[in-house]
Order: sequence, then C-alpha cells, then structure tokens
Amino acid sequence: MKEAVRLGEAARGRSAPNPNVGCVIVDDGKIVGQGATAPGGRPHAEAVALKQAGKKARGATLYTTLEPCAHASERGPTCAAIIPAAGIARVVIGIMDPDPRTSGHGTRMLRKAGVEVKSGVARQAARDSMSGYLSRIERGRPRITLKLALSIDGKVALPSGESKWITGEDARAHVHLERAHSDMILVGRGTYQADKPKLDVRLPGLEQWSPRRALLTSGEAVAGWEILGSPQDVYRLHDVNDLLVEGGSATATAFLAADLVDRILIYRAPILVGEGKQSLGYIGLDAIADAHGRWRASDGARLGIDRLEVYERVRE
Amino acid sequence: MKEAVRLGEAARGRSAPNPNVGCVIVDDGKIVGQGATAPGGRPHAEAVALKQAGKKARGATLYTTLEPCAHASERGPTCAAIIPAAGIARVVIGIMDPDPRTSGHGTRMLRKAGVEVKSGVARQAARDSMSGYLSRIERGRPRITLKLALSIDGKVALPSGESKWITGEDARAHVHLERAHSDMILVGRGTYQADKPKLDVRLPGLEQWSPRRALLTSGEAVAGWEILGSPQDVYRLHDVNDLLVEGGSATATAFLAADLVDRILIYRAPILVGEGKQSLGYIGLDAIADAHGRWRASDGARLGIDRLEVYERVRE
Repeated sequence: MKEAVRLGEAARGRSAPNPNVGCVIVDDGKIVGQGATAPGGRPHAEAVALKQAGKKARGATLYTTLEPCAHASERGPTCAAIIPAAGIARVVIGIMDPDPRTSGHGTRMLRKAGVEVKSGVARQAARDSMSGYLSRIERGRPRITLKLALSIDGKVALPSGESKWITGEDARAHVHLERAHSDMILVGRGTYQADKPKLDVRLPGLEQWSPRRALLTSGEAVAGWEILGSPQDVYRLHDVNDLLVEGGSATATAFLAADLVDRILIYRAPILVGEGKQSLGYIGLDAIADAHGRWRASDGARLGIDRLEVYERVRE
Repeated sequence: MKEAVRLGEAARGRSAPNPNVGCVIVDDGKIVGQGATAPGGRPHAEAVALKQAGKKARGATLYTTLEPCAHASERGPTCAAIIPAAGIARVVIGIMDPDPRTSGHGTRMLRKAGVEVKSGVARQAARDSMSGYLSRIERGRPRITLKLALSIDGKVALPSGESKWITGEDARAHVHLERAHSDMILVGRGTYQADKPKLDVRLPGLEQWSPRRALLTSGEAVAGWEILGSPQDVYRLHDVNDLLVEGGSATATAFLAADLVDRILIYRAPILVGEGKQSLGYIGLDAIADAHGRWRASDGARLGIDRLEVYERVRE
C-alpha cells in the first residue's frame, strides 16, 4: 500500500477533477502491475495496473489507495467491473470514496463478484495523498497551499520592492515541483503587474505539468489567466483539487484572513533584511493567545542553504 | 578531549574573565580526574582535575582544551608547574592560549619539566567551546548572541505591543539556559520600561548562574543595571566573555547595524501574527544580494511546539 500511496502522490496535480489514485498488483510477493490515475483523470490507476499485469492478475491481490469506481462513464467501464473480470482475488483499499456515485457501491460490486475486499489500510497516508480531491468533495473547495519566500526576520522584499532573490536555486526548484503537483496557481494583481510571472514548471521532464494560472483581482481579465474576484471564489473551482497561492503579501493576507489556507510552505533564507516589506498584513488577529493552536509544524527540510518549513492548519 | 570540551562548555558563563576550560585525566584507559574552570575563574580546570586524581595522576595523560597557564598569580601556582609536579606524563591540548602571558610559555615549561606535549587536538571543538573568551582576547570584545522570539512571519508582537507569549515553555526554558551560559545580558530601554525584566535564570539548581544585567540607553542609570551608551561600548567590557542581547527591536537593530552580532538564536513559534511589530528596522541593507553570505544556519532543534534556529555570522 505504501508503494500505491507513493504512486498516487506522484500523480497529484494532473488528475483533476479525478482523484490521484495509486495502485499496485501483487502476486506471490512480486509486483506484477502498477499505475496511477493518468493525466486528465483517465485511465484510472486500477486500469493502468491491470493492463500492465495482463494474465498475471489472475489470483493476485490489488492494492489501491481509493475504493474502485462504480459509476459508469462513456470514457470507460467501471473499475469495480474490470477488477473481477481480470481475475483479481483480493482487493485492499486505503479509503472509501466520499463521492456518492461510488461510495460503498464499488466494494459491494466487488464482493458480489466474489472478490475478497479489505478497506481502511494505511488510511491516513492514503487520505494525505489525496487531500486535494478529498477537500473538494468534502468541503467543496480545493486544498489550498500558501507559499512564502522569507528572510529570517520574515520579510519578502526590501522597502524598494526588490526581492530577487531571497531564496536560492534549490528552494526555487522545489517551488517548481510544488507547482507541478498543483492544478492551479494563483497570484495577486500586484505580483502579476510587477513580475509578469510565468508560473510555469521549469524542471527537466516536467514542463508539461505546468498548471492553470489564476489572478486574484477585482479588475480586468488577462488573456491566459483565470480570474478570482475574492478568496471565496475557490468554492466555484469544481475541477481544481490542489491550489497553490504564490503571493504577494495582499493575496496571502486575504486568503489567511478568510481562513482559506490549509498548508503553508515557508522557504526560509539565512538572511536578515531589516527594514523591508512585511509578508502579511492584518489577518484578523487581536490577541497573541488566539494565534496559537491554529498551525502545526508538520515537516522541514534543508534546501541548499535555505530551509523549507511546512505548516498544516489544525482543524478540529 | 571530547569530554574535556563538554566540561568546558558547561562552565561557560561563570568563568569570566578567565576562559571556560575543561580538563580530563586518563590513566590506563580510565578517567581518574576531571574538572572545569571554577566560578569566578579559580581554581583552574587542571587544578580541579589533578586534585580529584590525586596519586593516580602519576604517569597519566592530561587532556585540556586550552594550553595550561604559565603566568604567576597570587591566587595560586601556575598549571604548567603543578602538572609535572603531580607526575603527569603527557599533556594533550586543544588550542594554544592567545593570552600573551601564557601563549607558548605553558607548553615550554611543561616540556622543560619532561612532560610530553601534543597540541591542536580537536582544535575546532575546543575553539567553539571557548568562543567568548577567544573573542575577548582576539577582538577585544565579548562574543555577542542576539536572541529573538518570532512568529513564522517574523513578528515580535501585535501592534498593541502584546507579545506574551509568542513562544512556549520549552523555548523559554532554553532561553534561561542560554542566560546561565552568558556573563551578561543586555536589553534596551524600551524593553526595560515595558517589562521590567528580571533576566534571571529560573531553572532548578541554576538560579545562582544569573548573569550581570545591562541596559542600552543614553539616559539615566538604573540601580542594579550596568549601562552601555552604544553597541560600541562592548569594547569596554573587559570581563565579559559571552554577552546575550535579548531585545527589543531597536536594540537588536542597533547591534546588527553595527555588525556586532556573532550568533542569532531564533525561537520560532508556529503562529502567524500578520500586522504586528517587526523584529528589526533598518540594518544598513540596500540590496538583497548584500544580505547573502553573512549568516550560516549552524543548528536547529525542536523545543516543544516551537523551533530553535541558530545562525552564526560568517567572517572571513
């Protein structure tokens, strides 16, 4: 299942509106097939893995991070139908699909066809790997990640606006990887006008993974960019699982004030700026005590001379 | 030698103006004596270790982080005299003493007395453990550490000035440990007036380690506090090896603008403040490129839910 989660996680940012599922087929202790949801959402991970396994699927165990689909589509047969047809004896599932068209139906179809089914295996890892899809289904909006490149003292630029470069190459390459695993990237009008950012993925082999681009603005549209009039417009993004908010300061502040950030990536450079542009304005906080308990440091890593700090919003 | 360095490091903040030396005596693979410079600077580490070893010092090897002293004092005989007298066969030294009264004389006296001497062992670790003393001898001023308790976004307080508490108990306990290993703590006039801080060491068993207190102010003196009129006054502190600058923002800015900070301790809380008091003002930086290469992230640790980031000034 660990390998299936890894495959699914790698497909994040290209499967929307479908979930980024990972699948591994094991026979006699050997992997005979593996796959992830293909770009655009089809074929599904299970179909990819079954095709690879061919006749070796007969009697084998199929691990999948999400309950196999049970809703018919003109784009192909349901996974809950092709799995028994291929002769799979046992299906191990990470999490059940919250999509009402599949939820429970998938496992029922499998069991009716004589397949042994077990679900809830490596549940948390499976959930984490599909957090964007789950956010969209369960909360009606994408999982939203805010990225900030900051100095030790939390500045994003000099008073003049100069910000090139706070962080180094390794940190910037990591940002491109995060872009590749997002369905959409958003910046504010100010950042658009100052930098005319391409927001593309500049990593060898991943250029095709460049996500859709959006502007947070109450002003005019720009060719090639989608428009969000306010952070609340994320509830209208029905085909975006993972949204990356790249700045600037006013945009970051607006999303945080609306409590619409689920994850923060801080790329922290070992520099002091002193007088400079602050990363955030008023986010609705009036007492230090109220600031606590909202964020949990979930991960950290060295990126060249910089450091990545990952924080996740704690929601009870 | 590693153990000698550890002993010396533990004595930091109580030996000034003397160096915080560590010493271990080994005979037949066993530690027969150990010691560090005593509070106030006497007895020296070697004298403490020799007393503990007693007759077992005969034929043994003595490890010391610093060249044994050779300058007579009314407070006791020189270490370079008592080491051969105790029968030590071999002395292993971390670094030579830059104090001209001892430098080279200590090892010469030992060799004349028939003791085998080797120096430069674990040199960097020995230097690091006595960085305060070395700064005072080599640069004429203490090693200066700046402490800042910051939010993710680099704020020290709300706009109202409310800052209690950015960090949690574990981080605050660590600050008290840093205080214990400092000879003097300094705050600015604003922090003094707002908080009337005690700057004492509130750790069980270490209450006696509370360092001297100083105010950075051009104003009136305060009973119980020493006065520095400007950061440059650190050159007048002839009996302070390690100085801890605790804030506030104006004081931190003044020390950084004067390039008089050697080490920064950031206690980073997993909170966002948004609009709030900045940690630093103008420190003389006019281009982002000039900010790079000055600081090196040398250490990091989790302190409860907070994180300690340690940065060292890179000086070529």
